[in-house]
Amino acid sequence: MKAHVYVTLKRSVLDAQGQTVAGALRRMNYKGVSDVRQGKYFQLTLDNSFSSDVKSAEAEVERIAREVLTNPVIEEFTYHVEA
Amino acid sequence: MKAHVYVTLKRSVLDAQGQTVAGALRRMNYKGVSDVRQGKYFQLTLDNSFSSDVKSAEAEVERIAREVLTNPVIEEFTYHVEA
Repeated sequence: MKAHVYVTLKRSVLDAQGQTVAGALRRMNYKGVSDVRQGKYFQLTLDNSFSSDVKSAEAEVERIAREVLTNPVIEEFTYHVEA
Repeated sequence: MKAHVYVTLKRSVLDAQGQTVAGALRRMNYKGVSDVRQGKYFQLTLDNSFSSDVKSAEAEVERIAREVLTNPVIEEFTYHVEA
């Protein structure tokens, strides 16, 4: 089973990396990209000792994302579990 | 329209960040995560001057991902465009 966690800065937090990429795209003449936000992507490989039921695996991945992968002061996350 | 690009290190490239996270999870007693790969996530907001047709928007996002967001020597990417 695999889980994917996407961590981004909260909307209210300045995303300097994203703005740098957006500026670079403009200067390089890629048109039509009005905003870029950059975040982190985690791909977790889950083995047999992980909850095999998708519902409880999702709860466990949500806990890992919240407690370990995210700084809740400035970041938020989404995730999904592949059965 | 929004586009999402996920950049990860190639399988053959050592992912020190991912291994550090995997080790931390083990030490913190989160069971069942056998591997972690860490990558980058880009969320692009596309305005009206971007290709409005999904097929050509995808081709344009693929070009941006390949030419700007990814280092092809060590990284690979996936993407999807939200209509």
